[in-house]
Amino acid sequence: MTQINRQIHLASRPTGEPTADNFKLVETPVPDLADGQVLVRNHYLSLDPYMRGRMSESKSYADPQPLNQVMIGGTVGEVVASKNSHFAVGDKVVGMGGWQEFQVVDGQQRGVLQKVDTTHVPLSAYLGAVGMPGVTGWYGLVKIINPKAGETVVVSAASGAVGGAVGQLAKVRGARAVGLAGGAEKCRYVVEELGFDACIDYKQHKDVKSLAAALKAECPNGIDGYFENVGGMILDAVMLRANAFSRIAMCGMIAGYNGEPIPMTAPQLILVNRMKVEGFIVSEHMDVWPEALKELGTLVATGKLKYRETVAQGLDSAPEAFLGLLKGRNFGKQLVKLI
Amino acid sequence: MTQINRQIHLASRPTGEPTADNFKLVETPVPDLADGQVLVRNHYLSLDPYMRGRMSESKSYADPQPLNQVMIGGTVGEVVASKNSHFAVGDKVVGMGGWQEFQVVDGQQRGVLQKVDTTHVPLSAYLGAVGMPGVTGWYGLVKIINPKAGETVVVSAASGAVGGAVGQLAKVRGARAVGLAGGAEKCRYVVEELGFDACIDYKQHKDVKSLAAALKAECPNGIDGYFENVGGMILDAVMLRANAFSRIAMCGMIAGYNGEPIPMTAPQLILVNRMKVEGFIVSEHMDVWPEALKELGTLVATGKLKYRETVAQGLDSAPEAFLGLLKGRNFGKQLVKLI
Repeated sequence: MTQINRQIHLASRPTGEPTADNFKLVETPVPDLADGQVLVRNHYLSLDPYMRGRMSESKSYADPQPLNQVMIGGTVGEVVASKNSHFAVGDKVVGMGGWQEFQVVDGQQRGVLQKVDTTHVPLSAYLGAVGMPGVTGWYGLVKIINPKAGETVVVSAASGAVGGAVGQLAKVRGARAVGLAGGAEKCRYVVEELGFDACIDYKQHKDVKSLAAALKAECPNGIDGYFENVGGMILDAVMLRANAFSRIAMCGMIAGYNGEPIPMTAPQLILVNRMKVEGFIVSEHMDVWPEALKELGTLVATGKLKYRETVAQGLDSAPEAFLGLLKGRNFGKQLVKLI
Repeated sequence: MTQINRQIHLASRPTGEPTADNFKLVETPVPDLADGQVLVRNHYLSLDPYMRGRMSESKSYADPQPLNQVMIGGTVGEVVASKNSHFAVGDKVVGMGGWQEFQVVDGQQRGVLQKVDTTHVPLSAYLGAVGMPGVTGWYGLVKIINPKAGETVVVSAASGAVGGAVGQLAKVRGARAVGLAGGAEKCRYVVEELGFDACIDYKQHKDVKSLAAALKAECPNGIDGYFENVGGMILDAVMLRANAFSRIAMCGMIAGYNGEPIPMTAPQLILVNRMKVEGFIVSEHMDVWPEALKELGTLVATGKLKYRETVAQGLDSAPEAFLGLLKGRNFGKQLVKLI
């Protein structure tokens, strides 16, 4: 009996905000395995802001997502058939399976599929706190911001998978962690569950002056490090409160993803405050992943790194869940459960 | 007979562009020397863009220049009287004597006054290529841009004391050096005398698109390092041609010195290109001065580091010469000759 694999393809490129019409559902038979290949049933699909960038054709750090092919994406799942001696049926694996229910992987290619241990860490966490988002937060915090005890670190999108890790890792290092999030509920979660020292609801601030005043109140000693997920007015406000020798890790600028202009109003502050502003892509720093995953895995297993997941059910729900993510409707890591 | 010392004080703070009225000439007797003190007759006064920042009261990296006191500034001169065993009459010295003909220095304070050797390096060069401007260029190029052979380094204000050093030091390291300067004469000098590979007359480009096209023509492999002296449209154009992992050393943003807005139009390029943007003040990195001065002094003494000076005559001419500097009327290092 031929098994059917359901996939979501990119059908067209968005002009401005993406819509559900940019995606289409495709059914295709699961092919027979060749020698060395592994068949994985994907349990969870990760949805991440970077996918918005891939949908456009414009120059970026990565090639655009091709039209009429399976949308790119991280997945965790279980090996259901194997013609490869390194993988056995039942193995739990993390990979880049894309928006589909099954994937056939050439298990010879190093690093494409990684076995993971779910004894102390839930499978889905390998897409979040102990996966790409966690390592992203770790890299920006540890390798760029590198906070000293007593310094103040500010994080935008603080209730998200990346931002939540940044603040908790800053706390582990003895820094003050101040989040920015949209809405009272997310802010309460950031402080009460994630243990940040404070969280500012940016939706309560209509201009840069108001937001800068709120930052001044929550960061009485100024800002030494900023982890940037958003851009625009939030970046401007943070820069007004930045200390001498402060560091900005630029990870995402979601405010500009649909082509809106997001100028930095006062770049001269980089000079005045002798700041360092550095952009990074975590997949270009594979050398740090083992060290980062070790710390993140230990913290999750011991309950010291907390996170929340928003789980959409079924492959069909992926496009709408993704559009919601871009609007900030998720709470914590956005996943799609496929089984 | 009491000797008279002529000084220029800051009389008022500018609103917008500074004018000659912001300064005043004051005459005051040279005091008798106390034990440990040295009397220096200043031969040359250095005029530098940073002084514009000090004239304003707004927050910056340094305290504002106080009103009704001698304008701050680097000087070279000769010891004419000494009650300090470390300094003898006739010693050539570099210091921060300010805009005045004589200075009394407490020779006990380390580093305030430095003896210099004028056997192979002219005295005035200690205010330029072998002084603060040279070390500024050296720090940004070597410690931030750190070009590899074959990379492309772009420098704004390339005919100036700092920019000229940056490009020549880049050439020594096997990089391609491309300057930006105002006017055909300065551009010709940058290429023919300083040995840059190319120089773009930014005055020929009225918008960012035109300037970016010129940069593309002169930087066929993109831009790996940029030494920023200007800000505004030039920075925007450079960022459009920046390579992955490029570095920007932010040294000055003269375009915004009078309070004009100079937004960075597309900060998301820092992320897309994984750039590093770093502001610095050379006086905070005294540890590198000996290494920098050694290279700069050797290059000047052997004729491998070239520079030009614009010399105004007499203390009275300092305010107008400074206003001209801010408008780019100088050619190379702006000095005032006091003897």
